[in-house]
Amino acid sequence: MRIEIVNTGTELVLGDTINTNAAWLGQRLAALGLEVSRQTIVPDGAIIKVAIAEAAARSEVVLITGGLGPTNDDVTRECTAELLELPLEPSAEVMAHLEGYFTQRNKPVSEATKRQAMAPRGSQVLMNAFGTAPGLYLPAVLGAARGWNAHLFLLPGPPRELKPMMENQVEPILRSLLPDDADRAVLYQKITGMGESDIVEHIQADLEAMPGLELGYCIGKGDVDVRLAGAADVVAKAAALVRLKVGDFILSEDRRVIEEVVVDLLAERGEWVATAESCTGGTIASRITDVSGSSGVFGHGFVTYANEAKTKHLGVPADLIASHGAVSEEVARAMAEGCLATAGADHALAVTGIAGPSGGTPEKPVGTVFVALASRGQETVCRKLFFPGARDRFKLLTSQGALEMLRRRLRGINPTP
Amino acid sequence: MRIEIVNTGTELVLGDTINTNAAWLGQRLAALGLEVSRQTIVPDGAIIKVAIAEAAARSEVVLITGGLGPTNDDVTRECTAELLELPLEPSAEVMAHLEGYFTQRNKPVSEATKRQAMAPRGSQVLMNAFGTAPGLYLPAVLGAARGWNAHLFLLPGPPRELKPMMENQVEPILRSLLPDDADRAVLYQKITGMGESDIVEHIQADLEAMPGLELGYCIGKGDVDVRLAGAADVVAKAAALVRLKVGDFILSEDRRVIEEVVVDLLAERGEWVATAESCTGGTIASRITDVSGSSGVFGHGFVTYANEAKTKHLGVPADLIASHGAVSEEVARAMAEGCLATAGADHALAVTGIAGPSGGTPEKPVGTVFVALASRGQETVCRKLFFPGARDRFKLLTSQGALEMLRRRLRGINPTP
Repeated sequence: MRIEIVNTGTELVLGDTINTNAAWLGQRLAALGLEVSRQTIVPDGAIIKVAIAEAAARSEVVLITGGLGPTNDDVTRECTAELLELPLEPSAEVMAHLEGYFTQRNKPVSEATKRQAMAPRGSQVLMNAFGTAPGLYLPAVLGAARGWNAHLFLLPGPPRELKPMMENQVEPILRSLLPDDADRAVLYQKITGMGESDIVEHIQADLEAMPGLELGYCIGKGDVDVRLAGAADVVAKAAALVRLKVGDFILSEDRRVIEEVVVDLLAERGEWVATAESCTGGTIASRITDVSGSSGVFGHGFVTYANEAKTKHLGVPADLIASHGAVSEEVARAMAEGCLATAGADHALAVTGIAGPSGGTPEKPVGTVFVALASRGQETVCRKLFFPGARDRFKLLTSQGALEMLRRRLRGINPTP
Repeated sequence: MRIEIVNTGTELVLGDTINTNAAWLGQRLAALGLEVSRQTIVPDGAIIKVAIAEAAARSEVVLITGGLGPTNDDVTRECTAELLELPLEPSAEVMAHLEGYFTQRNKPVSEATKRQAMAPRGSQVLMNAFGTAPGLYLPAVLGAARGWNAHLFLLPGPPRELKPMMENQVEPILRSLLPDDADRAVLYQKITGMGESDIVEHIQADLEAMPGLELGYCIGKGDVDVRLAGAADVVAKAAALVRLKVGDFILSEDRRVIEEVVVDLLAERGEWVATAESCTGGTIASRITDVSGSSGVFGHGFVTYANEAKTKHLGVPADLIASHGAVSEEVARAMAEGCLATAGADHALAVTGIAGPSGGTPEKPVGTVFVALASRGQETVCRKLFFPGARDRFKLLTSQGALEMLRRRLRGINPTP
C-alpha cells in the first residue's frame, strides 16, 4: 500500500518547529508494516492544495497534518473540500463537542471556532479528545471522479491531539484497508556501546546472505537499531544470529531505551541507584527519572559541578582533587564511592569530565570524561571515554556510557569491555 | 528566491530518525530572509532522482541532504550525476583528505570509501571537516540543458557534518546569489509565562493593523516566538509595541532560550544558583549546564527524589514532610532554603510535584507542582503550577516555570505574577 505524509505549517518550513509528527507517524506506520514512500512539507496557504493533489494522485493513503485550527491560515479543510469539489456541511457531533468544550471553560463558541465544525460531504469526522479541531477521514471513493484512489486523513498538528487520534481512530481504519499478512515480522534489536561501523562489520555479511531478509540500521540517541523485517521465520533466524555475534551489546528487542532497561533491571532486583554528576550536569538523573516508576529505584542524585560540591556532598578529599585534578580516574572513583555511601544505594554512577568548549588541556582535551560505577560489595570500576564535539552530544553519549556500565553489571556482563 | 529541501534516508520515512536537519536548515535560511517553499523526504533509492528532478524544475535553489556515504544505499551523488548527464570524476582534493583521515586512524582507504571522492564534472567540492563524505555544489548552469535554473547543493546527512558545511560553505554561496535587500528585517521576540492564545489576545489586533508587517507565531519548548518580518522601520515599530504590551514576558530578542538568559543574567551579576529537584529529576540542572560557561554560575545541584534525600541533604524536617506531604508549598520552600544554605549560593530553585502517571490524589492530582525560589536577603517565594499530561512535557514546563521565576527576580520583576 503506497502511503504518503503531507505536513502543513509555515512553522515547519521556517524550522521553528521540529517535525516530530513525521517521525512518529513513520514509526506507527512501520509497526503496521507500512513504509512511507514520501513526505512533503509545505507552508500554510494554497500550496497545500498542490501537495495534497500530487500525493493523492500517487498514493493509496495520504495522511495530512496541520491547518485544521480556527485561525485564518488554517485552510487544510477548505483546500481538501475544493480539491474534491465537495460542499462543507456542519457536523452536529462536532458542534456539540465544541459547545461542551467552551462551556467547561466559561467561554462562548466564537465564529472562528465554528468553522471547525464544517466537514466535506461524505467524510467521516474523527473526534478530538484533546482539542477543538476534529480530524476528517475521506474514503477513496470521494476522489474517484478525479481519477484518484487515495484514502485521505486530515489530522491536527499538535502532537498531543494527533497521537491519540492516530492510534485510536486512524490505525483501525488503516488495518481494515490492509491485506492480511500474518506471516510478516519486524524486529528491532537496539545496540549500544558499539559504533555503527563496528556493528556492520560483525553482522552484515551473514545477514545479507539470508534470502528474504530486509536489513536496516537506524541511528538513535546513543544507540543503533538493527531493523530486521521479512517472513517471521527468517526474522527469527536473523535475530538469533545477531544475538550470537553481539549479544552482550543488545540493549533491548522491544525498542526500550537504556534508561528504561536500567530502571526495569533495578526494579526486578529491588535495587537502588544514585548519581553523582559533574560535567553531565544532571542528565543521567534526568534520563532515569524520565521513566515512569523510577521513584522505586532512584532516590538521590547530586550535581557536583563545583569542586567544593564534590568535597562537601560526596566526601571527595580536597587534596585528591588538588593532586589528580577534578577530571581524573581517582576523583571519579571517589565520587562514586562517596555517593554510594551517602545515598545508601546499591549502585552509584559518577562522571567527571570536560564538556567544553573551554577547559581542555593537551593531556585532557575537551571531550575527556571518566565514568565510575560503585556497587555495594563489588569492586568499583572506571572507564575513560572521549566524546569531542558539541556539548549536547557529549552529555548524551556520556550519560549513555554511564548507564551502559550499570546495565552490563546488572546483566552480569563485564561492565568495562 | 524559490528554495526547496530534499532530505533522503529510509531512516527518516521510517521515523527512526527525527528530521532535525530540515528544521535547522529552515532556521538558517529564514535568517537569510529565505522561506523554504517545500520540503520533500524520500527513502534511499531511485526515488531520490524523482524528488530532485521535481524540486529542480520548480526552484532556484535545492538543498539535498543524505546519501553521500560509503554504503550501497548511498546513491545521491550518482543519482544527481545521472540526472544532469555528467560524468563522475575523481577529485584529488577529496582523495587526499580521505587518505589523511584514514592514515590518522591507522586504516586503509577502502574501495567503498573511494566512491566518495567522485564528483560530477563541473561541480564544486565542499570539504567535510567532520567526516569522510564531501558535499557538492552544482551551479545552475549545469542543469540548463534540462531547462532547469536551480543551484543544487548535496550535503551530508549527519548534523555534525552538515551544520559546519552549511554555515561555512553553503551560506556564503547563497548570499552571493541573493539580491541586496538591506532594508528587510526579521525579529523574533521570545515569550514565556503566557500561553499562545493569551499572547494573541494582547498583541494581535494592533499588529495586524500595521501595513507591511508579516506576523507569525512559533511555539517552542515552553516558549513562543513572535516573528516580526518586513521593512526595518515597520519591524522596529511592531517590536516596540510588543514590548509595551507584554514586555515583562519577553525572554529574549535574539532567540536565546531561558537557560541561556538566566546564565547570562547571573554571570553579569556574579551570582550563583543552586537547584533542589524532586519531580523534575535533574532537568533544571541539566538545562542550566547545557549552557557553555554555566560552571561560573552553577556549582551544586540536588536530585532529592526520595523523602529521606530531602531531609538528609537539604535539611527538610521529616515531620514537615509527614504533616504537609512531600508535594506541598511548605516542603518546596524548605527545600529551596535548605539548598541555598548548604550550597552557599545566591539563589536556589526547588521543585516538588507529581509527574505521574501514578501518585495523584483528588486534592493533588497528577501534574500538581510547587516551585520555590529562595534568594539571599530576599523573601522566599513559591508558585503552585499544574501541568497534567505526559511526563516529558511536565518536566519541561516545570523546569521552564522554575527558570522563569529566577529570570524575573534577576530582572527585578515580581517573580510570581
